[in-house]
Amino acid sequence: MIGVFDSGYGGLTILKEFLRELPEYDYMYLGDNARAPYGNRSHEAVKSFAEEGIQYLFSKGCILIIIACNTASSQVLRELQEEYLRTPKVTDRKILGVIKPLAEKSAKITTKKRIGVVGTRATVQAKSYDHELQSLDPTIQVYSQDCPLLVPLVEEGWSHKPEGRMILKKYLRPLKSANVDTLILGCTHYPFLIKDFRQIMGKSVNIPHPGEVVSASLKDYLQRHPEIEQLLSKKEGRHFLTTDDPVRFKEVGDRFMKTDLKNIQKVDITKTTK
Amino acid sequence: MIGVFDSGYGGLTILKEFLRELPEYDYMYLGDNARAPYGNRSHEAVKSFAEEGIQYLFSKGCILIIIACNTASSQVLRELQEEYLRTPKVTDRKILGVIKPLAEKSAKITTKKRIGVVGTRATVQAKSYDHELQSLDPTIQVYSQDCPLLVPLVEEGWSHKPEGRMILKKYLRPLKSANVDTLILGCTHYPFLIKDFRQIMGKSVNIPHPGEVVSASLKDYLQRHPEIEQLLSKKEGRHFLTTDDPVRFKEVGDRFMKTDLKNIQKVDITKTTK
Repeated sequence: MIGVFDSGYGGLTILKEFLRELPEYDYMYLGDNARAPYGNRSHEAVKSFAEEGIQYLFSKGCILIIIACNTASSQVLRELQEEYLRTPKVTDRKILGVIKPLAEKSAKITTKKRIGVVGTRATVQAKSYDHELQSLDPTIQVYSQDCPLLVPLVEEGWSHKPEGRMILKKYLRPLKSANVDTLILGCTHYPFLIKDFRQIMGKSVNIPHPGEVVSASLKDYLQRHPEIEQLLSKKEGRHFLTTDDPVRFKEVGDRFMKTDLKNIQKVDITKTTK
Repeated sequence: MIGVFDSGYGGLTILKEFLRELPEYDYMYLGDNARAPYGNRSHEAVKSFAEEGIQYLFSKGCILIIIACNTASSQVLRELQEEYLRTPKVTDRKILGVIKPLAEKSAKITTKKRIGVVGTRATVQAKSYDHELQSLDPTIQVYSQDCPLLVPLVEEGWSHKPEGRMILKKYLRPLKSANVDTLILGCTHYPFLIKDFRQIMGKSVNIPHPGEVVSASLKDYLQRHPEIEQLLSKKEGRHFLTTDDPVRFKEVGDRFMKTDLKNIQKVDITKTTK
Protein backbone atom coordinates (compact mmCIF):
# COMPACT_ATOMS: atom_id res chain seq x y z
CA MET A 1 0.00 0.00 0.00
CA ILE A 2 1.13 3.56 -0.73
CA GLY A 3 0.65 6.03 2.14
CA VAL A 4 0.05 9.74 1.62
CA PHE A 5 0.55 11.84 4.72
CA ASP A 6 -0.58 15.42 5.07
CA SER A 7 -1.37 17.87 7.85
CA GLY A 8 -4.88 18.22 6.45
CA TYR A 9 -6.72 18.25 3.14
CA GLY A 10 -4.04 19.72 0.87
CA GLY A 11 -2.37 16.41 0.10
CA LEU A 12 -5.53 15.31 -1.68
CA THR A 13 -4.35 17.48 -4.63
CA ILE A 14 -1.33 15.16 -4.84
CA LEU A 15 -3.29 11.95 -4.27
CA LYS A 16 -5.71 12.96 -7.02
CA GLU A 17 -2.87 12.85 -9.56
CA PHE A 18 -1.56 9.54 -8.20
CA LEU A 19 -5.01 8.04 -8.73
CA ARG A 20 -5.10 9.34 -12.28
CA GLU A 21 -1.57 8.24 -13.22
CA LEU A 22 -1.10 5.14 -11.06
CA PRO A 23 -4.61 3.88 -10.32
CA GLU A 24 -3.70 0.21 -9.88
CA TYR A 25 -2.13 0.58 -6.40
CA ASP A 26 -3.77 0.61 -2.96
CA TYR A 27 -3.61 4.01 -1.27
CA MET A 28 -4.06 5.13 2.32
CA TYR A 29 -4.42 8.87 2.90
CA LEU A 30 -3.90 10.27 6.39
CA GLY A 31 -4.80 13.88 7.21
CA ASP A 32 -3.84 15.15 10.67
CA ASN A 33 -6.80 17.56 10.66
CA ALA A 34 -7.01 17.75 14.47
CA ARG A 35 -3.65 19.56 14.49
CA ALA A 36 -3.63 21.22 11.06
CA PRO A 37 -2.30 23.52 9.76
CA TYR A 38 1.40 22.86 10.43
CA GLY A 39 2.53 26.01 8.59
CA ASN A 40 3.16 28.21 11.62
CA ARG A 41 4.27 25.55 14.11
CA SER A 42 7.74 24.97 15.50
CA HIS A 43 10.16 22.46 14.00
CA GLU A 44 9.80 20.27 17.09
CA ALA A 45 6.00 20.18 16.89
CA VAL A 46 6.03 19.42 13.13
CA LYS A 47 8.58 16.67 13.67
CA SER A 48 6.67 14.89 16.41
CA PHE A 49 3.35 15.16 14.56
CA ALA A 50 4.80 13.92 11.25
CA GLU A 51 6.61 11.09 13.00
CA GLU A 52 3.34 9.92 14.54
CA GLY A 53 1.68 10.02 11.13
CA ILE A 54 4.46 8.06 9.46
CA GLN A 55 4.53 5.43 12.19
CA TYR A 56 0.79 5.02 11.99
CA LEU A 57 0.83 4.52 8.21
CA PHE A 58 3.67 1.97 8.43
CA SER A 59 1.78 0.15 11.20
CA LYS A 60 -1.21 -0.14 8.86
CA GLY A 61 0.87 -1.83 6.17
CA CYS A 62 2.14 1.01 4.02
CA ILE A 63 5.46 0.23 2.31
CA LEU A 64 6.05 3.60 0.71
CA ILE A 65 4.91 6.92 2.17
CA ILE A 66 4.78 10.25 0.41
CA ILE A 67 4.79 13.23 2.76
CA ALA A 68 2.57 15.51 0.70
CA CYS A 69 2.76 18.37 3.19
CA ASN A 70 5.44 20.86 2.15
CA THR A 71 5.92 22.08 5.71
CA ALA A 72 6.66 18.57 6.97
CA SER A 73 8.66 17.66 3.84
CA SER A 74 10.86 20.71 4.17
CA GLN A 75 11.29 20.60 7.92
CA VAL A 76 11.64 16.96 8.86
CA LEU A 77 11.74 14.60 5.85
CA ARG A 78 15.51 14.18 5.92
CA GLU A 79 15.56 13.50 9.66
CA LEU A 80 12.77 10.94 9.37
CA GLN A 81 14.42 9.24 6.39
CA GLU A 82 17.69 8.99 8.30
CA GLU A 83 15.97 7.55 11.35
CA TYR A 84 14.33 4.86 9.25
CA LEU A 85 17.50 4.11 7.31
CA ARG A 86 19.38 3.58 10.56
CA THR A 87 17.01 0.81 11.65
CA PRO A 88 18.11 -2.31 9.72
CA LYS A 89 14.68 -3.97 9.92
CA VAL A 90 12.93 -1.35 7.85
CA THR A 91 14.86 -1.29 4.57
CA ASP A 92 11.63 -2.26 2.83
CA ARG A 93 9.99 0.96 3.97
CA LYS A 94 10.52 4.23 2.17
CA ILE A 95 9.55 7.83 2.78
CA LEU A 96 9.52 10.38 -0.03
CA GLY A 97 8.70 14.07 -0.04
CA VAL A 98 7.54 16.70 -2.50
CA ILE A 99 10.41 19.22 -2.37
CA LYS A 100 12.93 17.30 -4.46
CA PRO A 101 10.67 16.48 -7.44
CA LEU A 102 9.43 20.07 -7.63
CA ALA A 103 12.95 21.49 -7.36
CA GLU A 104 14.27 19.11 -10.05
CA LYS A 105 11.45 19.92 -12.43
CA SER A 106 11.91 23.65 -11.92
CA ALA A 107 15.69 23.50 -12.34
CA LYS A 108 15.06 21.71 -15.62
CA ILE A 109 12.58 24.19 -17.09
CA THR A 110 13.99 27.51 -15.84
CA THR A 111 15.16 29.72 -18.68
CA LYS A 112 16.75 32.63 -16.83
CA LYS A 113 17.67 30.72 -13.65
CA ARG A 114 15.43 32.93 -11.56
CA ILE A 115 13.02 30.75 -9.58
CA GLY A 116 10.32 31.95 -7.20
CA VAL A 117 8.97 29.89 -4.30
CA VAL A 118 5.68 30.50 -2.48
CA GLY A 119 4.70 28.57 0.66
CA THR A 120 3.79 28.71 4.31
CA ARG A 121 6.04 30.56 6.74
CA ALA A 122 7.60 27.32 8.02
CA THR A 123 8.39 26.07 4.50
CA VAL A 124 9.94 29.36 3.42
CA GLN A 125 11.96 29.66 6.62
CA ALA A 126 13.29 26.11 6.30
CA LYS A 127 14.81 27.14 2.93
CA SER A 128 14.56 23.56 1.62
CA TYR A 129 13.72 24.63 -1.93
CA ASP A 130 16.67 27.03 -1.87
CA HIS A 131 19.07 24.29 -0.77
CA GLU A 132 17.69 21.72 -3.18
CA LEU A 133 17.78 24.11 -6.15
CA GLN A 134 21.25 25.35 -5.37
CA SER A 135 22.63 21.85 -4.99
CA LEU A 136 21.21 21.10 -8.45
CA ASP A 137 22.65 24.28 -9.96
CA PRO A 138 24.49 26.85 -7.82
CA THR A 139 23.88 29.61 -10.40
CA ILE A 140 20.11 29.51 -9.80
CA GLN A 141 18.73 32.52 -7.92
CA VAL A 142 15.84 31.76 -5.57
CA TYR A 143 13.24 34.31 -4.45
CA SER A 144 10.87 33.18 -1.71
CA GLN A 145 7.63 34.58 -0.42
CA ASP A 146 5.61 33.22 2.48
CA CYS A 147 1.84 33.57 2.01
CA PRO A 148 0.31 32.58 5.38
CA LEU A 149 -3.20 33.76 4.50
CA LEU A 150 -3.64 31.64 1.38
CA VAL A 151 -4.45 28.38 3.18
CA PRO A 152 -7.35 29.89 5.20
CA LEU A 153 -8.55 31.74 2.09
CA VAL A 154 -8.67 28.49 0.10
CA GLU A 155 -10.25 26.49 2.93
CA GLU A 156 -12.94 29.14 3.45
CA GLY A 157 -13.65 29.40 -0.26
CA TRP A 158 -12.62 33.08 -0.38
CA SER A 159 -9.67 32.71 -2.72
CA HIS A 160 -11.58 33.70 -5.84
CA LYS A 161 -13.39 36.62 -4.23
CA PRO A 162 -11.99 40.10 -4.90
CA GLU A 163 -10.45 40.31 -1.39
CA GLY A 164 -8.68 36.96 -1.83
CA ARG A 165 -7.36 37.98 -5.21
CA MET A 166 -6.07 41.30 -3.85
CA ILE A 167 -4.17 39.46 -1.12
CA LEU A 168 -2.68 37.05 -3.66
CA LYS A 169 -1.59 39.96 -5.85
CA LYS A 170 0.11 41.65 -2.91
CA TYR A 171 2.00 38.46 -2.05
CA LEU A 172 3.18 38.01 -5.64
CA ARG A 173 4.31 41.60 -6.21
CA PRO A 174 7.93 41.07 -4.99
CA LEU A 175 8.26 37.92 -7.13
CA LYS A 176 7.04 39.78 -10.21
CA SER A 177 9.54 42.55 -9.49
CA ALA A 178 12.27 39.93 -9.14
CA ASN A 179 11.49 38.77 -12.68
CA VAL A 180 11.30 35.09 -11.86
CA ASP A 181 10.72 32.86 -14.90
CA THR A 182 9.51 29.83 -12.92
CA LEU A 183 7.35 29.68 -9.80
CA ILE A 184 7.18 26.74 -7.40
CA LEU A 185 3.84 26.30 -5.60
CA GLY A 186 5.34 25.10 -2.32
CA CYS A 187 2.09 24.31 -0.53
CA THR A 188 -0.47 21.66 -1.42
CA HIS A 189 -3.34 24.15 -1.15
CA TYR A 190 -2.01 26.45 -3.84
CA PRO A 191 -2.87 24.30 -6.90
CA PHE A 192 -6.48 25.41 -6.33
CA LEU A 193 -5.28 28.86 -7.29
CA ILE A 194 -3.01 27.79 -10.13
CA LYS A 195 -5.09 29.72 -12.69
CA ASP A 196 -4.94 32.87 -10.56
CA PHE A 197 -1.19 32.43 -10.05
CA ARG A 198 -0.71 32.03 -13.81
CA GLN A 199 -2.89 35.02 -14.60
CA ILE A 200 -1.19 37.31 -12.11
CA MET A 201 2.38 36.20 -12.92
CA GLY A 202 1.80 36.33 -16.68
CA LYS A 203 2.35 33.89 -19.52
CA SER A 204 6.13 34.13 -19.47
CA VAL A 205 6.31 32.50 -16.02
CA ASN A 206 6.28 28.70 -15.81
CA ILE A 207 4.20 27.31 -12.94
CA PRO A 208 4.33 23.50 -12.87
CA HIS A 209 1.40 21.70 -11.24
CA PRO A 210 2.75 20.06 -8.04
CA GLY A 211 0.41 17.05 -8.27
CA GLU A 212 1.53 16.29 -11.84
CA VAL A 213 5.21 16.70 -11.00
CA VAL A 214 5.11 14.55 -7.86
CA SER A 215 3.06 11.90 -9.58
CA ALA A 216 5.46 11.70 -12.56
CA SER A 217 8.32 11.43 -10.08
CA LEU A 218 6.60 8.60 -8.18
CA LYS A 219 6.03 6.74 -11.44
CA ASP A 220 9.69 7.10 -12.28
CA TYR A 221 10.72 6.02 -8.75
CA LEU A 222 8.66 2.83 -8.98
CA GLN A 223 10.23 1.98 -12.33
CA ARG A 224 13.72 2.46 -10.92
CA HIS A 225 12.91 0.47 -7.76
CA PRO A 226 11.20 -2.79 -8.76
CA GLU A 227 12.14 -4.26 -5.34
CA ILE A 228 9.80 -1.72 -3.71
CA GLU A 229 7.23 -1.77 -6.48
CA GLN A 230 6.69 -5.52 -6.21
CA LEU A 231 5.89 -5.19 -2.48
CA LEU A 232 2.97 -2.86 -3.20
CA SER A 233 -0.52 -4.30 -3.19
CA LYS A 234 -2.58 -3.59 -6.30
CA LYS A 235 -6.29 -3.89 -5.63
CA GLU A 236 -7.21 -0.27 -6.34
CA GLY A 237 -8.12 0.17 -2.65
CA ARG A 238 -8.58 3.70 -1.31
CA HIS A 239 -8.60 4.42 2.43
CA PHE A 240 -9.01 7.83 3.99
CA LEU A 241 -8.00 8.48 7.58
CA THR A 242 -8.36 11.68 9.56
CA THR A 243 -7.52 12.63 13.13
CA ASP A 244 -10.64 14.82 13.35
CA ASP A 245 -14.26 14.68 12.23
CA PRO A 246 -14.81 12.26 9.28
CA VAL A 247 -18.02 14.06 8.26
CA ARG A 248 -16.21 17.36 7.76
CA PHE A 249 -13.38 15.45 6.02
CA LYS A 250 -15.84 14.02 3.54
CA GLU A 251 -17.37 17.45 2.95
CA VAL A 252 -14.09 19.18 2.12
CA GLY A 253 -12.52 16.05 0.61
CA ASP A 254 -15.36 15.57 -1.89
CA ARG A 255 -14.93 19.17 -3.00
CA PHE A 256 -11.13 18.78 -3.31
CA MET A 257 -11.26 15.43 -5.13
CA LYS A 258 -14.43 16.15 -7.12
CA THR A 259 -15.78 12.73 -6.22
CA ASP A 260 -17.75 10.88 -3.54
CA LEU A 261 -15.17 9.71 -0.97
CA LYS A 262 -15.79 6.43 0.80
CA ASN A 263 -13.97 4.55 3.60
CA ILE A 264 -13.29 7.64 5.73
CA GLN A 265 -12.27 6.72 9.25
CA LYS A 266 -11.30 8.69 12.32
CA VAL A 267 -8.06 7.50 13.93
CA ASP A 268 -5.91 8.32 16.95
CA ILE A 269 -2.30 8.42 15.76
CA THR A 270 -0.71 9.48 19.04
CA LYS A 271 -0.45 5.98 20.45
CA THR A 272 1.28 3.85 17.80
CA THR A 273 4.43 2.08 18.97
CA LYS A 274 7.39 1.71 16.62
CA MET B 1 -3.24 30.59 41.50
CA ILE B 2 -5.69 31.61 38.75
CA GLY B 3 -5.35 29.68 35.50
CA VAL B 4 -6.24 31.10 32.10
CA PHE B 5 -6.60 28.53 29.35
CA ASP B 6 -6.73 29.34 25.67
CA SER B 7 -6.14 27.56 22.38
CA GLY B 8 -3.45 30.12 21.56
CA TYR B 9 -2.66 33.78 22.07
CA GLY B 10 -6.16 35.25 22.09
CA GLY B 11 -6.75 34.71 25.82
CA LEU B 12 -3.98 37.20 26.52
CA THR B 13 -6.54 39.94 25.74
CA ILE B 14 -8.53 38.62 28.73
CA LEU B 15 -5.51 38.11 30.99
CA LYS B 16 -4.40 41.68 30.25
CA GLU B 17 -7.57 43.01 31.88
CA PHE B 18 -7.26 40.61 34.84
CA LEU B 19 -3.76 41.99 35.48
CA ARG B 20 -5.06 45.53 35.33
CA GLU B 21 -8.11 44.95 37.55
CA LEU B 22 -6.90 42.17 39.86
CA PRO B 23 -3.11 42.44 39.87
CA GLU B 24 -2.54 40.95 43.33
CA TYR B 25 -3.18 37.32 42.35
CA ASP B 26 -0.83 34.75 40.84
CA TYR B 27 -1.69 33.82 37.26
CA MET B 28 -0.76 30.93 35.03
CA TYR B 29 -1.58 31.29 31.33
CA LEU B 30 -1.63 28.20 29.12
CA GLY B 31 -1.83 28.51 25.33
CA ASP B 32 -2.25 25.26 23.36
CA ASN B 33 -0.41 26.78 20.40
CA ALA B 34 0.70 23.41 19.00
CA ARG B 35 -2.95 22.61 18.22
CA ALA B 36 -4.42 26.08 17.74
CA PRO B 37 -6.74 27.30 16.39
CA TYR B 38 -9.68 25.27 17.75
CA GLY B 39 -12.25 27.24 15.73
CA ASN B 40 -12.81 24.71 12.95
CA ARG B 41 -12.25 21.49 14.89
CA SER B 42 -14.83 18.90 15.92
CA HIS B 43 -16.53 18.93 19.31
CA GLU B 44 -14.66 15.78 20.28
CA ALA B 45 -11.24 17.24 19.46
CA VAL B 46 -11.98 20.51 21.29
CA LYS B 47 -13.19 18.58 24.31
CA SER B 48 -10.16 16.34 24.62
CA PHE B 49 -7.73 19.26 24.06
CA ALA B 50 -9.48 21.53 26.59
CA GLU B 51 -9.66 18.71 29.10
CA GLU B 52 -5.91 18.18 28.86
CA GLY B 53 -5.33 21.90 29.38
CA ILE B 54 -7.61 22.07 32.42
CA GLN B 55 -6.06 18.99 34.00
CA TYR B 56 -2.59 20.38 33.45
CA LEU B 57 -3.43 23.72 35.08
CA PHE B 58 -5.07 22.03 38.08
CA SER B 59 -2.02 19.76 38.43
CA LYS B 60 0.17 22.88 38.61
CA GLY B 61 -1.81 24.27 41.55
CA CYS B 62 -4.49 26.40 39.92
CA ILE B 63 -7.67 26.67 42.02
CA LEU B 64 -9.77 28.62 39.58
CA ILE B 65 -9.49 28.35 35.79
CA ILE B 66 -10.99 30.69 33.24
CA ILE B 67 -11.42 29.16 29.79
CA ALA B 68 -10.75 32.28 27.75
CA CYS B 69 -11.25 30.52 24.42
CA ASN B 70 -14.80 31.06 23.16
CA THR B 71 -14.71 27.90 21.08
CA ALA B 72 -13.86 25.75 24.12
CA SER B 73 -16.16 27.76 26.41
CA SER B 74 -19.10 27.33 24.10
CA GLN B 75 -18.48 23.72 23.16
CA VAL B 76 -17.31 21.99 26.31
CA LEU B 77 -17.38 24.23 29.42
CA ARG B 78 -20.59 22.79 30.77
CA GLU B 79 -19.43 19.19 30.26
CA LEU B 80 -16.11 19.89 31.97
CA GLN B 81 -17.79 21.69 34.87
CA GLU B 82 -20.15 18.77 35.37
CA GLU B 83 -17.31 16.29 35.29
CA TYR B 84 -15.46 18.20 37.97
CA LEU B 85 -18.57 18.74 40.08
CA ARG B 86 -19.26 15.02 40.04
CA THR B 87 -15.88 14.27 41.62
CA PRO B 88 -16.27 15.01 45.35
CA LYS B 89 -12.55 15.64 45.89
CA VAL B 90 -12.39 18.70 43.69
CA THR B 91 -15.01 21.03 45.16
CA ASP B 92 -12.22 23.54 45.75
CA ARG B 93 -11.56 23.75 42.02
CA LYS B 94 -13.64 25.89 39.72
CA ILE B 95 -13.85 26.40 35.99
CA LEU B 96 -15.42 29.51 34.50
CA GLY B 97 -15.97 30.55 30.90
CA VAL B 98 -16.46 33.75 28.93
CA ILE B 99 -19.88 33.18 27.32
CA LYS B 100 -22.04 33.82 30.38
CA PRO B 101 -20.51 37.17 31.46
CA LEU B 102 -20.65 38.50 27.90
CA ALA B 103 -24.25 37.33 27.43
CA GLU B 104 -25.34 38.85 30.77
CA LYS B 105 -23.70 42.18 30.02
CA SER B 106 -25.25 42.32 26.56
CA ALA B 107 -28.71 41.37 27.82
CA LYS B 108 -28.39 44.23 30.28
CA ILE B 109 -27.38 46.92 27.79
CA THR B 110 -29.45 45.98 24.76
CA THR B 111 -32.02 48.65 23.90
CA LYS B 112 -33.98 47.01 21.09
CA LYS B 113 -33.34 43.37 22.13
CA ARG B 114 -31.53 42.68 18.87
CA ILE B 115 -28.10 41.26 19.64
CA GLY B 116 -25.44 40.25 17.11
CA VAL B 117 -22.75 37.64 17.76
CA VAL B 118 -19.53 37.22 15.79
CA GLY B 119 -17.17 34.28 16.34
CA THR B 120 -15.44 31.27 14.85
CA ARG B 121 -17.47 28.66 13.01
CA ALA B 122 -17.43 26.30 16.01
CA THR B 123 -18.63 28.99 18.43
CA VAL B 124 -21.44 30.12 16.15
CA GLN B 125 -22.53 26.56 15.41
CA ALA B 126 -22.59 25.67 19.12
CA LYS B 127 -25.20 28.45 19.60
CA SER B 128 -24.09 29.00 23.22
CA TYR B 129 -24.62 32.74 23.10
CA ASP B 130 -28.09 32.17 21.66
CA HIS B 131 -29.03 29.78 24.45
CA GLU B 132 -27.53 31.94 27.18
CA LEU B 133 -29.20 35.12 25.92
CA GLN B 134 -32.55 33.47 25.44
CA SER B 135 -32.50 31.93 28.89
CA LEU B 136 -31.87 35.42 30.28
CA ASP B 137 -34.65 36.96 28.20
CA PRO B 138 -36.66 34.91 25.69
CA THR B 139 -37.69 38.03 23.78
CA ILE B 140 -34.09 38.76 22.70
CA GLN B 141 -33.41 38.13 19.02
CA VAL B 142 -29.93 36.81 18.24
CA TYR B 143 -28.17 37.21 14.88
CA SER B 144 -24.93 35.26 14.47
CA GLN B 145 -22.15 35.49 11.92
CA ASP B 146 -19.10 33.25 11.77
CA CYS B 147 -15.95 35.03 10.60
CA PRO B 148 -13.35 32.27 10.08
CA LEU B 149 -10.82 34.52 8.35
CA LEU B 150 -10.51 37.10 11.12
CA VAL B 151 -8.18 35.05 13.34
CA PRO B 152 -5.57 34.51 10.62
CA LEU B 153 -5.92 38.15 9.53
CA VAL B 154 -5.22 39.36 13.08
CA GLU B 155 -2.38 36.89 13.65
CA GLU B 156 -0.72 37.88 10.36
CA GLY B 157 -1.13 41.58 11.07
CA TRP B 158 -3.35 42.09 7.98
CA SER B 159 -6.50 43.13 9.81
CA HIS B 160 -5.94 46.86 9.35
CA LYS B 161 -4.88 46.60 5.70
CA PRO B 162 -7.54 47.45 3.09
CA GLU B 163 -8.06 43.76 2.24
CA GLY B 164 -8.63 42.87 5.89
CA ARG B 165 -11.06 45.71 6.33
CA MET B 166 -12.99 44.71 3.21
CA ILE B 167 -13.37 41.19 4.56
CA LEU B 168 -14.57 42.49 7.94
CA LYS B 169 -17.10 44.73 6.22
CA LYS B 170 -18.44 41.81 4.23
CA TYR B 171 -18.83 39.72 7.38
CA LEU B 172 -20.69 42.51 9.19
CA ARG B 173 -23.10 43.39 6.39
CA PRO B 174 -25.85 40.90 7.46
CA LEU B 175 -25.63 42.11 11.07
CA LYS B 176 -25.98 45.73 9.98
CA SER B 177 -28.99 44.78 7.88
CA ALA B 178 -30.47 42.99 10.89
CA ASN B 179 -30.29 46.27 12.83
CA VAL B 180 -28.64 44.82 15.90
CA ASP B 181 -28.13 47.34 18.71
CA THR B 182 -25.47 45.33 20.57
CA LEU B 183 -22.65 43.18 19.20
CA ILE B 184 -20.86 40.43 21.12
CA LEU B 185 -17.24 39.83 20.10
CA GLY B 186 -17.32 36.07 20.61
CA CYS B 187 -13.65 35.39 19.93
CA THR B 188 -10.66 36.54 21.95
CA HIS B 189 -8.86 37.79 18.83
CA TYR B 190 -11.53 40.28 17.89
CA PRO B 191 -10.84 42.92 20.56
CA PHE B 192 -7.80 43.88 18.42
CA LEU B 193 -10.32 45.05 15.86
CA ILE B 194 -12.74 46.65 18.29
CA LYS B 195 -12.21 50.12 16.77
CA ASP B 196 -12.87 48.75 13.27
CA PHE B 197 -15.95 46.89 14.51
CA ARG B 198 -17.24 50.09 16.14
CA GLN B 199 -16.51 52.18 13.08
CA ILE B 200 -18.19 49.79 10.65
CA MET B 201 -21.22 49.09 12.87
CA GLY B 202 -21.73 52.76 13.72
CA LYS B 203 -22.13 54.67 16.98
CA SER B 204 -25.61 53.37 17.72
CA VAL B 205 -24.31 49.82 18.23
CA ASN B 206 -22.92 48.86 21.64
CA ILE B 207 -19.82 46.66 21.49
CA PRO B 208 -18.61 45.75 25.00
CA HIS B 209 -14.92 44.90 25.37
CA PRO B 210 -14.73 41.16 26.27
CA GLY B 211 -11.65 41.57 28.49
CA GLU B 212 -13.32 44.29 30.55
CA VAL B 213 -16.57 42.35 30.89
CA VAL B 214 -14.93 39.05 31.88
CA SER B 215 -12.61 40.79 34.30
CA ALA B 216 -15.48 42.65 36.04
CA SER B 217 -17.32 39.35 36.25
CA LEU B 218 -14.31 37.60 37.82
CA LYS B 219 -13.99 40.41 40.39
CA ASP B 220 -17.64 39.98 41.26
CA TYR B 221 -17.28 36.18 41.45
CA LEU B 222 -14.39 36.45 43.90
CA GLN B 223 -16.40 38.80 46.10
CA ARG B 224 -19.33 36.40 46.13
CA HIS B 225 -17.09 33.37 46.79
CA PRO B 226 -14.69 34.20 49.63
CA GLU B 227 -14.16 30.45 50.20
CA ILE B 228 -12.49 30.28 46.76
CA GLU B 229 -10.86 33.69 46.97
CA GLN B 230 -9.02 32.84 50.18
CA LEU B 231 -7.44 29.78 48.55
CA LEU B 232 -5.79 31.91 45.85
CA SER B 233 -2.14 32.80 46.27
CA LYS B 234 -1.32 36.52 46.03
CA LYS B 235 2.30 37.11 45.12
CA GLU B 236 1.70 38.82 41.78
CA GLY B 237 3.33 35.85 40.03
CA ARG B 238 2.87 35.50 36.25
CA HIS B 239 3.61 32.23 34.46
CA PHE B 240 3.21 31.65 30.75
CA LEU B 241 3.00 28.14 29.34
CA THR B 242 2.73 27.12 25.70
CA THR B 243 2.58 23.75 23.96
CA ASP B 244 4.70 25.07 21.08
CA ASP B 245 7.72 27.32 20.59
CA PRO B 246 8.27 29.71 23.55
CA VAL B 247 10.29 32.11 21.37
CA ARG B 248 7.40 32.63 18.98
CA PHE B 249 5.06 32.85 21.99
CA LYS B 250 7.13 35.69 23.42
CA GLU B 251 7.19 37.46 20.05
CA VAL B 252 3.40 37.43 19.58
CA GLY B 253 2.66 37.65 23.32
CA ASP B 254 4.74 40.81 23.77
CA ARG B 255 2.84 42.42 20.90
CA PHE B 256 -0.54 41.32 22.36
CA MET B 257 0.26 42.35 25.95
CA LYS B 258 2.35 45.41 25.06
CA THR B 259 4.97 44.32 27.59
CA ASP B 260 8.08 42.17 27.94
CA LEU B 261 6.83 38.69 28.89
CA LYS B 262 8.99 36.61 31.22
CA ASN B 263 8.72 33.03 32.56
CA ILE B 264 7.59 31.47 29.26
CA GLN B 265 7.90 27.72 29.30
CA LYS B 266 7.13 24.98 26.81
CA VAL B 267 5.05 22.14 28.27
CA ASP B 268 3.60 18.80 27.16
CA ILE B 269 0.00 18.68 28.38
CA THR B 270 -0.94 15.35 26.82
CA LYS B 271 0.42 13.25 29.67
CA THR B 272 -1.10 14.66 32.88
CA THR B 273 -3.04 12.14 34.95
CA LYS B 274 -6.20 13.17 36.76
